[in-house]
Amino acid sequence: MKAPAGGVTVKTYEIPLKTRGFCDTHDITPLAQARLSESGIREGQALFFVAGSTAGLTTVEYEPGLLKDLQEFFEKLAPQGGNYHHEETWHDGNGFSHVRASLLKPSLNVPVAGGRFTLGTWQQVVLVDFDNRPRTRNVIFQVMGL
Amino acid sequence: MKAPAGGVTVKTYEIPLKTRGFCDTHDITPLAQARLSESGIREGQALFFVAGSTAGLTTVEYEPGLLKDLQEFFEKLAPQGGNYHHEETWHDGNGFSHVRASLLKPSLNVPVAGGRFTLGTWQQVVLVDFDNRPRTRNVIFQVMGL
Amino acid sequence: MKAPAGGVTVKTYEIPLKTRGFCDTHDITPLAQARLSESGIREGQALFFVAGSTAGLTTVEYEPGLLKDLQEFFEKLAPQGGNYHHEETWHDGNGFSHVRASLLKPSLNVPVAGGRFTLGTWQQVVLVDFDNRPRTRNVIFQVMGL
Repeated sequence: MKAPAGGVTVKTYEIPLKTRGFCDTHDITPLAQARLSESGIREGQALFFVAGSTAGLTTVEYEPGLLKDLQEFFEKLAPQGGNYHHEETWHDGNGFSHVRASLLKPSLNVPVAGGRFTLGTWQQVVLVDFDNRPRTRNVIFQVMGL
Repeated sequence: MKAPAGGVTVKTYEIPLKTRGFCDTHDITPLAQARLSESGIREGQALFFVAGSTAGLTTVEYEPGLLKDLQEFFEKLAPQGGNYHHEETWHDGNGFSHVRASLLKPSLNVPVAGGRFTLGTWQQVVLVDFDNRPRTRNVIFQVMGL
Repeated sequence: MKAPAGGVTVKTYEIPLKTRGFCDTHDITPLAQARLSESGIREGQALFFVAGSTAGLTTVEYEPGLLKDLQEFFEKLAPQGGNYHHEETWHDGNGFSHVRASLLKPSLNVPVAGGRFTLGTWQQVVLVDFDNRPRTRNVIFQVMGL
């Protein structure tokens, strides 16, 4: 298959973040939008991905009340003080972080149309860091399209 | 956007839906399949996405019993009558909707092969509207491929 | 990135698996990496998808303790012995499997860069089979990129 001039391209970026763990939630929409604009891609798919098994990605209305709600929700779902077999392997106290991250999952796809994400006005792309300590994360942001 | 001869193309559609909220679940597979056929794309990725932070997308065997099960499951997970800090910000009574939607997430990718979704026979793509009132939704349906 | 002659391509594979159900969790990373290498695609998106509505895909640090933790977590979340309306329709005893699978969802996207998945060292792509009996599964593995 011949690539016509102007065909679909792929651009891969890293969005570095310093997080505090314990459900620390970061809005990465503006940083991603800047890279999307830089890519020149107008129509296609944006893929957000976090390497590591103690963080996840989703969207949320980014306001302080809801961030607290999410924190309390995940604490109820997989409590920090619970018993985890993971401790028997590593003794690093973050079994709860792993369980939460596997549930929320490390990737999120957002359509791009007209050079912008098709997000709602009150909908931001967030990294949720479930680990039990501060971390440096690199969110992979990859755009494929025309 | 015009397809360059031979190469990968991107087609973006909207699937409009009227929902009743409260875990109202809509099978959007036939509407999406019609747009997929129209797109002419035979192999690639289909991305479903709902703008807004009180609805989510997943797959389910679309039969009435299971729809009730999901409703009861989400009610147990993040109860409508619970206390949500989101209320302190907006007082619109839908903190539970936001929490559920952030967990289920707004996007879903399905492979396309031979011009069809690679879904199982008893597996439908659904929008779950978690909001606490009727809404008009536009599901973004975007196909990229050959 | 410079587009090599040939442009973006799409390759679709099947990864067959025999599972035991009941939250049986399989690391499919090596099988997928082999197919990715075979595809020749160096940069783009990998999409994992499981047909059927009683299994899901995510990532996890693949070690025995955590696999047990996930099993116990899902049992608490949607217990096998619970009451499910799905039973009234089919009487096949796997309502819990469906609810869990709809929550975890059947797809996962992972970026490809330099011919490899951008996974962390302790992060594997897994199929979780929630059904209540042994199954033969075909995970669809589709790569699109340059």
